[in-house]
Amino acid sequence: MWLNGTSDLIENLKKKGAKRVALQFPEGLKRQSAAIAASLKDAGFEVILSGDPCYGACDLALDTLTYADVLVHFGHAPVDDQPKVIFEPYRMDFEIAVLENALPFLKEDTVGLVTTVQHVHLIPAMELFLQSKGISCSIAEGGRRTPIRGQVLGCSFTAAKASGADEILFVGTGLFHPIGIALATHARVIALDPLTGSAQEVSGDALMRRRFAVMEKARGAKSIGIIVSTKSGQQRMDLARRLASLSPTAVIVFMREVNPDELLNLGFACYVNTACSRLAYDDQVRFPVPVLSPQEFEILCGVRSWDAYTIDEIA
Amino acid sequence: MWLNGTSDLIENLKKKGAKRVALQFPEGLKRQSAAIAASLKDAGFEVILSGDPCYGACDLALDTLTYADVLVHFGHAPVDDQPKVIFEPYRMDFEIAVLENALPFLKEDTVGLVTTVQHVHLIPAMELFLQSKGISCSIAEGGRRTPIRGQVLGCSFTAAKASGADEILFVGTGLFHPIGIALATHARVIALDPLTGSAQEVSGDALMRRRFAVMEKARGAKSIGIIVSTKSGQQRMDLARRLASLSPTAVIVFMREVNPDELLNLGFACYVNTACSRLAYDDQVRFPVPVLSPQEFEILCGVRSWDAYTIDEIA
Repeated sequence: MWLNGTSDLIENLKKKGAKRVALQFPEGLKRQSAAIAASLKDAGFEVILSGDPCYGACDLALDTLTYADVLVHFGHAPVDDQPKVIFEPYRMDFEIAVLENALPFLKEDTVGLVTTVQHVHLIPAMELFLQSKGISCSIAEGGRRTPIRGQVLGCSFTAAKASGADEILFVGTGLFHPIGIALATHARVIALDPLTGSAQEVSGDALMRRRFAVMEKARGAKSIGIIVSTKSGQQRMDLARRLASLSPTAVIVFMREVNPDELLNLGFACYVNTACSRLAYDDQVRFPVPVLSPQEFEILCGVRSWDAYTIDEIA
Repeated sequence: MWLNGTSDLIENLKKKGAKRVALQFPEGLKRQSAAIAASLKDAGFEVILSGDPCYGACDLALDTLTYADVLVHFGHAPVDDQPKVIFEPYRMDFEIAVLENALPFLKEDTVGLVTTVQHVHLIPAMELFLQSKGISCSIAEGGRRTPIRGQVLGCSFTAAKASGADEILFVGTGLFHPIGIALATHARVIALDPLTGSAQEVSGDALMRRRFAVMEKARGAKSIGIIVSTKSGQQRMDLARRLASLSPTAVIVFMREVNPDELLNLGFACYVNTACSRLAYDDQVRFPVPVLSPQEFEILCGVRSWDAYTIDEIA
């Protein structure tokens, strides 16, 4: 994909005067890394490739900057201000006409339109298509972590909330984002997978039932680990300190990859996750003990009411 | 183990004026972490626990020092100078008389005596025992990474080499250390496991045969990843740069945990390991492609002779 286009990148790097270049790819694109690295090395750059797992722009390999003038991060838009990082988002095209499949589900004249970073360049074309079908779009400017118009992240639904719409069309893969949008906005949410063409109405009810069961299991846990991520865009130490102050048996646990083996080794009876907010919601089945969101822990500690349950977003 | 003894640690921390304390435990001791953390929190300290995997003092959770005045590292002696780290080695006792089992294997009047950090406090008692049997001991002062007399690491056999002995007695668990000593010293090596009592003569021949097979598989690899560790005591960037200059298809890969999944995702045909030197020797069966030591790669590149094959140590 970029192999055809490294000439632009090389031009850009030369303009910046970079000589030592670090490269970082998310898991799904890592297979391109050896060839791209070799092509930059061939162009005269000293190249360092980050080999750690990477799932987003919240997870920048800033440690490479000890040895590199600039870090090129592939696949994501920035979630924070990073002067020494060049972002090369991954653009994934699809046939706009696939939106046809969502039309039978839409009830309102105006829908909020949101998508993920790999499709966000198609927002204008999607808007035109829906307008041609008599549906107007409310598309919000991005938030701090989502710099592009109409963009949402699994930890930031700002563009969905700010659309102000009662009905939201999410175009993208998977159900985590639209479920999060439903819980964050209380709007009616339609999800369209542009690659398979399948459309459906999405509700947060099933997730809520699962989460309440996890909370019941966590009640009365004798030891609590408050997980703080060491990753650049997931580090919420202030929140973690506040949560740790809610229980004498709560201890802050600082870690990079939150995985089942490490949680088992540490041996806490329950964890509260302030790292990537998807971990608690998506990966609970993989974990040996309950992993709560910050809001769920607050409810169990009696400092938040059940009515104020909300999905965790990183501000 | 330390739970009975946290009073000494608390005293020490108070003397240093530490208020915010980070704790780090290796995998085998992590289960004690929740209780020790709670006991320090109870004593009035703000506590942060490192939750990342840890296999040695080469792998210090220095990132915790962003939020802590001091890092207490349990289980290992220092491998480098770390002013803000307190080391709490783990002492594992055994019956000195178990050395009786090694006597039938010893042929010389003088043996080099070495052990690992958890038993190194027993070096004087072991020396006395062997003297009482008419065997004198050559016990070398430690090297830079092995500060204690008679101590060896899996990546540093300085105390074995400096003993100058033709016969070396290694007291400890597992065969990696004594095999490494055999390859590093060319001495006759006897290994005694003080917990099971089993003694044996150890040779590096089988490891060498396996390594030669791995080298043959790596010959002609089309892409080469030169692994550099991000860990404090394993980072050999200068070595990696020199190795990367030996082949146009070699790219430096900077990573924290060297695991099979990441090596597969990155997709190089072969790797050269400058991180923990045991990884190539011990874990090759877990890796999807050949992982060479620096010296093995040099031999394949024609800049080192086969006769100069040696085991990789971190200087």
